[in-house]
Amino acid sequence: MSEQSPLDLAEGDPFGPHNLPYGVFSTADDPGRRRVGVRIGDHVLDAGAAAHTLGSPYAALLARPSLNPLLAAGRTAWRDVRRAITAWVTVPGHRADMEPLLHPLDAVTLHLPYEVADYVDFYASEHHATNVGRIFRPDGDALTPNWKHLPIGYHGRSGTVVVSGTDVVRPSGQRKAPADAAPVFGPSVKLDIEAEVGFVVGTPSRMGTPVALGDFGDHVFGLSLLNDWSARDIQAWEYVPLGPFLGKSFATSVSAWVTPLEALDAARTDPPARDRELLPYLDDSAEDEKGGFDLRISVAVNGHVIAEPPFATMYWTAAQQLAHMTVNGASLRTGDLYGSGTVSGPEVGQRGSLLELTWNGRDALELPEGKRTFLEDGDVVTMTAWAPGPDGVRVGLGEVSGRIVPSA
Amino acid sequence: MSEQSPLDLAEGDPFGPHNLPYGVFSTADDPGRRRVGVRIGDHVLDAGAAAHTLGSPYAALLARPSLNPLLAAGRTAWRDVRRAITAWVTVPGHRADMEPLLHPLDAVTLHLPYEVADYVDFYASEHHATNVGRIFRPDGDALTPNWKHLPIGYHGRSGTVVVSGTDVVRPSGQRKAPADAAPVFGPSVKLDIEAEVGFVVGTPSRMGTPVALGDFGDHVFGLSLLNDWSARDIQAWEYVPLGPFLGKSFATSVSAWVTPLEALDAARTDPPARDRELLPYLDDSAEDEKGGFDLRISVAVNGHVIAEPPFATMYWTAAQQLAHMTVNGASLRTGDLYGSGTVSGPEVGQRGSLLELTWNGRDALELPEGKRTFLEDGDVVTMTAWAPGPDGVRVGLGEVSGRIVPSA
Repeated sequence: MSEQSPLDLAEGDPFGPHNLPYGVFSTADDPGRRRVGVRIGDHVLDAGAAAHTLGSPYAALLARPSLNPLLAAGRTAWRDVRRAITAWVTVPGHRADMEPLLHPLDAVTLHLPYEVADYVDFYASEHHATNVGRIFRPDGDALTPNWKHLPIGYHGRSGTVVVSGTDVVRPSGQRKAPADAAPVFGPSVKLDIEAEVGFVVGTPSRMGTPVALGDFGDHVFGLSLLNDWSARDIQAWEYVPLGPFLGKSFATSVSAWVTPLEALDAARTDPPARDRELLPYLDDSAEDEKGGFDLRISVAVNGHVIAEPPFATMYWTAAQQLAHMTVNGASLRTGDLYGSGTVSGPEVGQRGSLLELTWNGRDALELPEGKRTFLEDGDVVTMTAWAPGPDGVRVGLGEVSGRIVPSA
Repeated sequence: MSEQSPLDLAEGDPFGPHNLPYGVFSTADDPGRRRVGVRIGDHVLDAGAAAHTLGSPYAALLARPSLNPLLAAGRTAWRDVRRAITAWVTVPGHRADMEPLLHPLDAVTLHLPYEVADYVDFYASEHHATNVGRIFRPDGDALTPNWKHLPIGYHGRSGTVVVSGTDVVRPSGQRKAPADAAPVFGPSVKLDIEAEVGFVVGTPSRMGTPVALGDFGDHVFGLSLLNDWSARDIQAWEYVPLGPFLGKSFATSVSAWVTPLEALDAARTDPPARDRELLPYLDDSAEDEKGGFDLRISVAVNGHVIAEPPFATMYWTAAQQLAHMTVNGASLRTGDLYGSGTVSGPEVGQRGSLLELTWNGRDALELPEGKRTFLEDGDVVTMTAWAPGPDGVRVGLGEVSGRIVPSA
């Protein structure tokens, strides 16, 4: 064994064999051929080629240009494939076969790893919802009366979900300050981020049949970081009475790497105590599996960390969101994506949006290159995260990054 | 020529060669083979087989299990294919070839004719929005301040768009009367309809590039009737602050037939006078093409007509909706579907929802089988429509129908 092997990882590498997130990549010498890849350290294993080399029956799921066939294969297949890949990258006898199939991460192009079916965005952080309520409805209750009874959500635009690294064009639209007589049109002057976690559905469900809380793991394959870019000025003018539309629909960025839920067993945690009794379909107090995930998110603008939102503080869990989303009989499709909602903790430095961090522009952030209230053209926003893994090792989540380019 | 030919239509048949809507069908002897069909009278022409028989270059677009390839082919192709099919069903020399390829409508199964990408629903009838505002916000202004400045819309669930004829399971969910201390869970007791027109996008657009008003016809292929089923009790409790979600996402029914815009040239009409100056991207006062469509809709419950909503009264046009939907740079995909919003005219008998027709249940409708406020299990709702065509002939729109079945 060579000491130079890409499979010789530093101790505690957050992308070690305990993690193994999935993505889709292509290489410069064959840019049209997209392939499923598995991240190991700073390399990408060509998973389909590995399966072929080893005569694995999973080649049919992995030698594909998208994760969709694997997502659709269901939980037993997810577990079996993960077990197989773990062996491919850890059993010494496979090294000579695997090493030629490992591509340095910085030498590949990463693509949107699955075809997004429906995209739903929730609003599950009590701290975030409270902050937003105080900013936008200062004379009313911060939380609407329904907030503690159901996980509020709405559908977003799946056609503009883009992979990390995609530039985001500053959106134009209507905005109207309360004192103005009529709206004006122009590039958004309050372009913001929302630090979220996105859950990816693998197994579909039948129309008319709700998915119970306990069936979360049968349907959801994994998660990734998600940045729900938001134009606050467009949103404020348009959103009553039917909700956000153009203030959100111009772009939503997701990480190129989907972390399977199985890699996050050690990160399971109990959600905050509920202070309202929940209807049975949402009551997770008797569930075997803890509903929360202890993910530590970090948000940086131009490399400077501005917030560290703790996902463990989310009031509503992903399992509750799935149960709610389907309780009316709405079906799930492979590739459905749902965002947690902005992750904000109780502390100022834990807020997942500039709206909250600057209190709608009142309190500018000091960055090395100057003050920031909302995003300026050229700004690069990068979110990273980790979770506790087995034996004290961290599980790294793939980053989600995007640069703001001027309005066309 | 036989007098029994399915191509010998009665004079004024609303599905004559001036119409030619597209759908997707299969036959009982080969149920797995979905094919593009064109409706002519009470028959369906197997369009791909016709193209093959006649050696047409359009076989590649028509011998397909979905309309998506035709939708993606663009406006010139739409025009050329329509011209070709018109000749196939009208030139006497083709009769012998075409007659074996015509299937009686009642002998085929009709399918969802295209893969729905994103689904957006608008709120474009001033009469509807005013009625809803009066019902839900009796103490405020009926129209929100933004209503006359932009076509309000939101994203819906594309995965639960179903073809006419699909049963609709009554959704369950949370509802809370204002006087109740906490929400209760159960089957919706205010299940409603919304009579709408759905526009189907063919040609995609690039992210970051808005689609101008005048480019409507380059992107939108056609339209069909759409029933946006709505659970008013679920909606009322959930929709503040992020808009409708489970009150709508359980099912949206569309007609099996997509009428190409070209068939509706004679139905073009001017929209109502605007009483606010519009921002340039929405100002259609100088457009060459009239933005409205004179579609006469009829809504029946169990065969009894309850409303005749006039689409010509819609305040916002489909071209304005498309321009608005993309002005922030959001891209279009082939198969995007957007609903007009409920069509309601100024008269009581022209209202496109039971919410309005019964004033939220206050004034029951008298049907032959009894009073109705909202829908009961077993009710069948059917929407039909026609438009003025060339030379005084009507253009029929394919019906959209659905039956309510009890909650699971």
